[in-house]
Amino acid sequence: MPAYSTNMRLKFPILALILEIITIILYAVFVTYDDGHGHHDDHHKTNGTEKSPLDLYPMFQDVHVMIFIGFGFLMTFLKKYGFSSVGVNLLLAAFGLQWGLLMQGLWHMTDGKIKMNIFGMINADFSTATVLISFGAVLGKTSPVQLLIMTILEITIFSINEHLVANILGANDVGASMIIHAFGAYFGLAVARVLYRPGLSNGHENDGSVYHSDMFAMIGTVFLWMFWPSFNSAIAERGFPQLTAVINTYVSLAACVLSAYAFSSLVEHKGKLDMVHIQNATLAGGVAVGTCADMQIQPFGAMLIGFVAGIISTLGFKYLSPVLASNLGIQDTCGVHNLHGMPGILGGLAGIVAVALGKAETGSAAMQAAALASSLGFALIGGAITGMIMKLPFWGQPPDQNCFDDSLYWEVPNEEEENEGSLAAAENSKNKAEA
Amino acid sequence: MPAYSTNMRLKFPILALILEIITIILYAVFVTYDDGHGHHDDHHKTNGTEKSPLDLYPMFQDVHVMIFIGFGFLMTFLKKYGFSSVGVNLLLAAFGLQWGLLMQGLWHMTDGKIKMNIFGMINADFSTATVLISFGAVLGKTSPVQLLIMTILEITIFSINEHLVANILGANDVGASMIIHAFGAYFGLAVARVLYRPGLSNGHENDGSVYHSDMFAMIGTVFLWMFWPSFNSAIAERGFPQLTAVINTYVSLAACVLSAYAFSSLVEHKGKLDMVHIQNATLAGGVAVGTCADMQIQPFGAMLIGFVAGIISTLGFKYLSPVLASNLGIQDTCGVHNLHGMPGILGGLAGIVAVALGKAETGSAAMQAAALASSLGFALIGGAITGMIMKLPFWGQPPDQNCFDDSLYWEVPNEEEENEGSLAAAENSKNKAEA
Amino acid sequence: MPAYSTNMRLKFPILALILEIITIILYAVFVTYDDGHGHHDDHHKTNGTEKSPLDLYPMFQDVHVMIFIGFGFLMTFLKKYGFSSVGVNLLLAAFGLQWGLLMQGLWHMTDGKIKMNIFGMINADFSTATVLISFGAVLGKTSPVQLLIMTILEITIFSINEHLVANILGANDVGASMIIHAFGAYFGLAVARVLYRPGLSNGHENDGSVYHSDMFAMIGTVFLWMFWPSFNSAIAERGFPQLTAVINTYVSLAACVLSAYAFSSLVEHKGKLDMVHIQNATLAGGVAVGTCADMQIQPFGAMLIGFVAGIISTLGFKYLSPVLASNLGIQDTCGVHNLHGMPGILGGLAGIVAVALGKAETGSAAMQAAALASSLGFALIGGAITGMIMKLPFWGQPPDQNCFDDSLYWEVPNEEEENEGSLAAAENSKNKAEA
Repeated sequence: MPAYSTNMRLKFPILALILEIITIILYAVFVTYDDGHGHHDDHHKTNGTEKSPLDLYPMFQDVHVMIFIGFGFLMTFLKKYGFSSVGVNLLLAAFGLQWGLLMQGLWHMTDGKIKMNIFGMINADFSTATVLISFGAVLGKTSPVQLLIMTILEITIFSINEHLVANILGANDVGASMIIHAFGAYFGLAVARVLYRPGLSNGHENDGSVYHSDMFAMIGTVFLWMFWPSFNSAIAERGFPQLTAVINTYVSLAACVLSAYAFSSLVEHKGKLDMVHIQNATLAGGVAVGTCADMQIQPFGAMLIGFVAGIISTLGFKYLSPVLASNLGIQDTCGVHNLHGMPGILGGLAGIVAVALGKAETGSAAMQAAALASSLGFALIGGAITGMIMKLPFWGQPPDQNCFDDSLYWEVPNEEEENEGSLAAAENSKNKAEA
Repeated sequence: MPAYSTNMRLKFPILALILEIITIILYAVFVTYDDGHGHHDDHHKTNGTEKSPLDLYPMFQDVHVMIFIGFGFLMTFLKKYGFSSVGVNLLLAAFGLQWGLLMQGLWHMTDGKIKMNIFGMINADFSTATVLISFGAVLGKTSPVQLLIMTILEITIFSINEHLVANILGANDVGASMIIHAFGAYFGLAVARVLYRPGLSNGHENDGSVYHSDMFAMIGTVFLWMFWPSFNSAIAERGFPQLTAVINTYVSLAACVLSAYAFSSLVEHKGKLDMVHIQNATLAGGVAVGTCADMQIQPFGAMLIGFVAGIISTLGFKYLSPVLASNLGIQDTCGVHNLHGMPGILGGLAGIVAVALGKAETGSAAMQAAALASSLGFALIGGAITGMIMKLPFWGQPPDQNCFDDSLYWEVPNEEEENEGSLAAAENSKNKAEA
Repeated sequence: MPAYSTNMRLKFPILALILEIITIILYAVFVTYDDGHGHHDDHHKTNGTEKSPLDLYPMFQDVHVMIFIGFGFLMTFLKKYGFSSVGVNLLLAAFGLQWGLLMQGLWHMTDGKIKMNIFGMINADFSTATVLISFGAVLGKTSPVQLLIMTILEITIFSINEHLVANILGANDVGASMIIHAFGAYFGLAVARVLYRPGLSNGHENDGSVYHSDMFAMIGTVFLWMFWPSFNSAIAERGFPQLTAVINTYVSLAACVLSAYAFSSLVEHKGKLDMVHIQNATLAGGVAVGTCADMQIQPFGAMLIGFVAGIISTLGFKYLSPVLASNLGIQDTCGVHNLHGMPGILGGLAGIVAVALGKAETGSAAMQAAALASSLGFALIGGAITGMIMKLPFWGQPPDQNCFDDSLYWEVPNEEEENEGSLAAAENSKNKAEA
């Protein structure tokens, strides 16, 4: 791209360094270790016995794997965008967890300090999930600089909505169907709408997968699928409520696989399975059961939720995404509307019904509905404003023809064929990479 | 394949939906949460103190990773069958764990209910392992419809044999050398025998690996290898017996690696290592030490078992598998006889000896022998019957020329070369995928 | 290579079998289970309450994943050396952990026996990390026979230095910046110096990555990055010191990502990111915070260490490694000097400062400095001697032209193009593999 410069050399490193230095200063002022004294946290006790400070550590690590391997590799399905998918995922999540710990901790300070513990680290990881979901909507069409800006803004707005939902409204959302999945999806869709690219309305040659990139994506899918019970139960009340959240998520995901496979075959040409559905819709059961994961909905209730989520998600990929792109100008690269958006709303609705039926220990259906509305409202308005900031013309946004291509922001190795060391091919590839 | 139709469009989705709906109904009637009351379970106590309901959760997640990543990616070594390997593995395991929880739970109901807890989820995951082992024997030669049928039948038969071995015979098999590994292998081999394809007796161009598919398979191998101590100890008595099972498996696997590598080099052309052996025979130590994992066989005893298992397994791949295929009509795609069959029998025999030598707290050598015989008998007869049902001509079995090829059941992306955007190649590939 | 024979057929399997048989005999004489009696181990208690023998098991499994997946896949970035990277990694680690348990256990015998428990297994895994780091320095240029010899010698020397540092000097090094990372790096660099190959001074066509091999390497990177908090805290004192080690490592790594990405862009052509930096320098924060992970350096102190480590590591890859290769004859394939060497020294220095400032409960700055000097001295002298033994001409060292190529020691599948079944190409590739 001779006539175009991303200015990565100056803008990206300076922004990254400034953000990190500011963050370190804020940590020096506000953050210390949780030494077990001086604050009261219901989540650290169960049945009157004090737990070890590392009791939640295995669940934290499961969530950590979902954030960095799960989200990162799920997005590697694009043929030429694997470096960015897993690499920028790492960048955004590494910065996001630092920022999220600050933003969430500000609401719960003790003696003027945020006291770090495993529970806070899980929530910090959670806050990055919203950004990674939104990242999926704009994957391939945004620069690292734009995405760092989105990370700061989205996590800040998320923390406000989360505080409102959990502490002011007192709503249930243990697995975060509303405050993470629906929020992250609609935030990302709002950004994608603002960043609409007419030039991509007929598709792009790199906006697709190859065989091996689909295999890498399955690494992400399967790790997300396996560890989702940890995601939905990590911050549940310890003991049997946490067990309930694990069980509900486990069976919901299992039922979801069957309906996603069945509908993938039903809607596709000649009844073949489609990797896009398998990689994504099989996870919708984890999203949709999130809000009522720790409620007494019984295993079959969780399975019903997962079963329906798998159907909705698959149908969304097949029929709704093309309409959103062509009619509403929402180009959703990973289809986050189908994996996180609609299943997140389904989860919120299921939570309203479950609370109304008395399946939860606390809460009211009205507050659940308010929580869902709040999450969607903050997402759409916050995403629209964030999108407008991201659209400012000096953040190195890629031109249409360089979308979905790592070589704009990464040194990409010469793609010579392995069986022919032809210098010509290597040279050609090198020229292409540096074009 | 113009003259051939797999009828996936109707048969597969209808079967999957019906199975899931029946399962949800059965769960509504029979399954609820374990609330810690109303049943007595030795596995949930140790040293007289009640444990948290999630104590076993990290081990459950290790087993979960083995089932979905381990088995799934281990089978991705075939050059054109990666989608099916990891994708159908997910499908079968997701359905199998639901079915297994029912089948195993029926023997242990409380107040007319199966009470779900982590222990039951581990056993549900275990029950799917039998199917995934058998899947390896018929990999590339069966349709998803056939495999769903195999899942139902095999898990049902497994549950009967497991109940007989554990509760009636009172035999030891903590790591399931007999009831999972030997059972799953010989069940699958019996199915493969019934489904014998003379047309494949001279091999198939797609029945082999490429460089990258072997790398994906190593993801499966290494995760299986690392987490096998969890597999063999997850349902052991808590405390020191569980520690013993972890240690025995850890050292058995380590010793097995050395003998597998040594014999792979010894038997191969010019002393080179063979990926087939490395991917599989390095795991035989985990299989073979299963039955006596929690017995006082001492670390060196476990290492001896692993050392021998690595040798037997490698020799089996090199010398026995070709004979089984050419003389007995048993076409064992993944060589499950070498990884699960013979090492499983070795494990059963080691258990007989160890019990006879007084290394176990309970049990008799005769009952151990009966357990091994029962597992083999149920496997061979059950597998033969299941194979005959699977052979019925309306389950969409692939024709010989389409074996080992994802494109029969999956939408496969255009395999155009990355360095040439030639429309001709893409068109050609597309035609091929839809042929 | 018609005129060259690696003699794998005889030397490698015989060595592997003899080593394993000797090891089993030593285990029969010296190793048994830890039954919880007869020894006093501070690490198994916290706050006066006895813990379960499997309390550390989830952290052990995290470390296990780092050793086998993390190190194994991190080295798969080379285009034609993936089998060796992940396969020989498995071989060396499987043997190394058996040997390490013996070498470390000999200093702590009870009643003439080494009593195995999870704590010992973590340390056994740790001991293999030194070998795997050194393996990175000589990757692609050594035979399996040479590497097995290095494993025995390096772990033996490591165990002596570790005993000196921990028990004689009484120095702090909970995350092993000095005794594993600096030791392993400088040991490997000394070996690489002795094995200097002038023929590779102008590079080698296979000493580089392709797109997919860089993706496989990211699997290693991300698993190392995620589980590093377990590495640095696994043997910390239980309770809040362990929590401190987790938190410090978590934030150090997060800060390190930002500085590594920023400097990767700053120093590279047109500001693009370089996969070599992302795969490696993002981990330097875990190395550098190791020594003072469990000290009261506060989260911002840990972040500063990680931030600086990311910069030093990236600059080392860009500017120092070429100088080491061209001027000092140190050909460091994976750049372990930048990931483990300099960040390890930084960690040791940070430990000296932190102890001097009173951030640790015990220890003196002088002993910390002595520990760093001891680790470097043992590494350089031990590595040089080991390198000379490895240089003996009968260990099957590969000739220059066959470096960085799996096909010398592995059966490599025909690399025919997937879209053309041309027998000519297959034949050509086969000839090449067997050349």
